Parts: sequence; C-alpha cells; structure tokens
Amino acid sequence: MSVDERREQLIAVALELFSHRPPEEVSIDDIAAAAGASRPLVYHYFPGKQAIYEESLRRAGRELSARFEEPADGPLSERLYRVMGRYLDFVQSHGPGFAALLRGGSVTASTNTSAVIDEVRKAAHEQILGHLALPSPSPGLRLTVRAWIANAEITSLEWLADRSVPLEELRLHLVQEFVASLTLTAAREPALAAELAGFFAGERPDGPTGKLVRDLAGLLAVPGLADTLAVLAVPPTPEEPREQA
Amino acid sequence: MSVDERREQLIAVALELFSHRPPEEVSIDDIAAAAGASRPLVYHYFPGKQAIYEESLRRAGRELSARFEEPADGPLSERLYRVMGRYLDFVQSHGPGFAALLRGGSVTASTNTSAVIDEVRKAAHEQILGHLALPSPSPGLRLTVRAWIANAEITSLEWLADRSVPLEELRLHLVQEFVASLTLTAAREPALAAELAGFFAGERPDGPTGKLVRDLAGLLAVPGLADTLAVLAVPPTPEEPREQA
Repeated sequence: MSVDERREQLIAVALELFSHRPPEEVSIDDIAAAAGASRPLVYHYFPGKQAIYEESLRRAGRELSARFEEPADGPLSERLYRVMGRYLDFVQSHGPGFAALLRGGSVTASTNTSAVIDEVRKAAHEQILGHLALPSPSPGLRLTVRAWIANAEITSLEWLADRSVPLEELRLHLVQEFVASLTLTAAREPALAAELAGFFAGERPDGPTGKLVRDLAGLLAVPGLADTLAVLAVPPTPEEPREQA
Repeated sequence: MSVDERREQLIAVALELFSHRPPEEVSIDDIAAAAGASRPLVYHYFPGKQAIYEESLRRAGRELSARFEEPADGPLSERLYRVMGRYLDFVQSHGPGFAALLRGGSVTASTNTSAVIDEVRKAAHEQILGHLALPSPSPGLRLTVRAWIANAEITSLEWLADRSVPLEELRLHLVQEFVASLTLTAAREPALAAELAGFFAGERPDGPTGKLVRDLAGLLAVPGLADTLAVLAVPPTPEEPREQA
C-alpha cells in the first residue's frame, strides 16, 4: 500500500469502529488490529487516538453532507423525503459512535469535533434553503430551518436509544414536521405566506404533504374540536368601557 | 463569614462571572477578585476552576428547573407562556456563559456538565407532561416534547447570538410551536386526538392558541392555497388497472 492508501485505510477502519462503539471504547490497538497493522504504524500516521477520531469524523461529516444533495425536481416534501431516507440510513449505520458525540460530554468532544458537526448542520441548512429558493430567507425562516434540523438530530438520537418505531415512520414524520413548521412560519410572515401557495401547489395527494393535510383534516372529526377552533378563530372583541356608576 | 456562607458566596460570584463570559475567559483570579477573597482561599474551597464551574452550573440548573414549575391552572398555552417568560428571562440574564456550554466543544464540557444539562431537560420534560396530565403519554408524544425542548434551546441560543427579534415574539412563537407540534402528533395518534379537544376547549381567543388559530386561518386567504389544500385533502384514488391491449 502507498502512504496515501494506508492512511485512507486506517481512517476507513477507524470510522467503521467509531461507528459501532462510543469513542472511549475504541483503542489504538483496536484500530491497528482491524487494519492488520502494528501499533507503531498507526502512530506513524496519526499522533494519537484523538487525531484519528477527528479525521474519521471529518470523513463521516463529508459523507453525510453529500447525502443532503438532492436535485431540484418534483414536490418539495418528496425531495426532503428522499434526503431523509439517506440521512436516516446513515444514522442507522453509523449511529452508536456519533450519538456519543452529539449527546455532548463525550471525552472526545473538542472544538474540532464541534466544527465538523457545525459544518454538517450548515450543509443541511443551506440545502434546505436552496430548495425553498426564496430570494432572501427571513431570520424567522432561518430559525425555523435550524430548529427543524435540531428536531431531526434529537429524533434520530432518541431513535438510536430504543429503536421503538419503524425508521420509515420517523422519516415521514420529520418531513411532515418540516412542512408544518414552514406553514407556521408563513402564518406569521406575509412574504413567506405568499410563497406558500406555490410550494403546496407542487405537492401530490400521495406525498408526505398530502398525507399530512388529510391527517390534520381528520382531526376536525374529533367531537368538539371543530367547534372550539371556530370559536378561537373569531378575534376577541375589545372589552366595552364600563359605564360609570 | 462562616465556612458555608463563604462557599455560597464564592459560588454566587462565580455564577455571575460565568453568566456573562464564556468559561475559558474566567480565571480563579477573577473569581477571587470578585469575591474579595485571596486565590488560596478559593482553592481552599474548590480544587480548581472546573469544580467551581460545575458547582455554579448545578446552581444555575436548579434555578432554571425551578422556573419551570407552574400551577395547573388556566389554559395550557397560557401556563406554558408564563413558564417561557421566566425561561427566556433566565436566558437573557445568564446566557453568554451557558451558551458556550450548550453549543458544545466547550473546554469545560464534561460528563458532570452534561448531567446538569440533562437534568434541566428532564425537569422541563416532566413539567410539560405533568400539565398535559395524560394517563400514559405515548413514545410519539414524548419525542414531540423532547424535540420541542431542543427547539427552545436552539432558538434561545440563536437569539443570544444576534438578539435580532424581540424576546416577547420568541416567547409567543415557541408556545405556538408547542401547540402546533402537539396537534401534529395528535393527527397521527387517535388516543391523543381524543384528548386534544379538551386541551383546546380550555383555550381563550386572546391567548397564544387563539392567536395561532387566527394566523393559520389567515393563510386560507392566500390566493390559491385553500384550493390546493382542498385537492390534497382528497385521498388519491388507486390507479385503475390498465386495459390489456
């Protein structure tokens, strides 16, 4: 193997190990053994475990960011649905190792590892804004996107802990939550509201948004709910000035 | 000062310093100077900066958790609105220091500091579930609450970075996002849907939920949107089997 090949191999092997065990449970000896290399050889390429961990994390970060790339074709919610399929697939295959890092308090957390995580979040953020294709996304919309990314992180971390629901359900829910958050933001921002009709116009009845609309419409069948909403939809009348006694 | 009083004073002084500067910018000398004490005296009470940092963080965590406590009176969204007022007030007064920690990669992050953060999240989680007062909250609802707490964290961190919107707006939005997330979860979970009418029945037109309902109803006035939603609300018909040629 050339120097470059050997370095690549060590990173690939380390990434595999760090994907399945928390970083504190992976030793340089484990990496050497899995790579069929000696301990001194690993040290020849990397000063220590932290360096190889950070390098494999950077590799994982690039791989994950690449999965966010999606052509600007078809309904928005279906694009996001495809991206989330690839994202959750990554979570499933690399999860246990990076869960430790994302949860914080990991012994391997450092400004370098935080920078990698921030890069991935930024890539996700930019992809989403790119697909929304608005001339100037408002601070409110940016915050909505940021909060939804946090939702996706938390949701996948919780899923990794107990895998209590089918991943496919999570995938649909996350996409629908994005559509709902976008709608909620549009309800406060007239400029975004004007764009919202265009987003929805491209959606299909059998896509994530169509299913969401029908699920929400189904709530109106809950006894009493439609009436209550109708009452709340009427603006409160300002209190009449009291008559002086 | 008694031994206990001096210890309390040092923690209070440290908390004040850590609230206004990232931990790496606060030294033992700063703490000693602010407390009117000598450096050796600080070391008499605490083995080092990390220990005093963790103790002041525990103090802050307890103070924050106490702010989540709210009597079970009145509409749900108004209770949460009161809690969020106290939470955002805490963020505003202690923000810069703890932002560094929550952002991760802080040099002072440790399993101890993570444990404090987890405790605060857990307190928030339990308060919310307590107010919802459901006999057995589903995994889906728990995840919704957890994701909303992450939303509140991210939103306040972003706000601390640029303070671009009035805090009062953030407060209302976060509460409305909770109501929306709860509704979305209910749309997928029939058992929760049955409870939703009760939650909404207690709401008032001039409260956060009333405003939310009117903002969303306002979206229906956006040209084209109501028609599109009506189309999406109709279940797709299964494709007709093609005639054989």
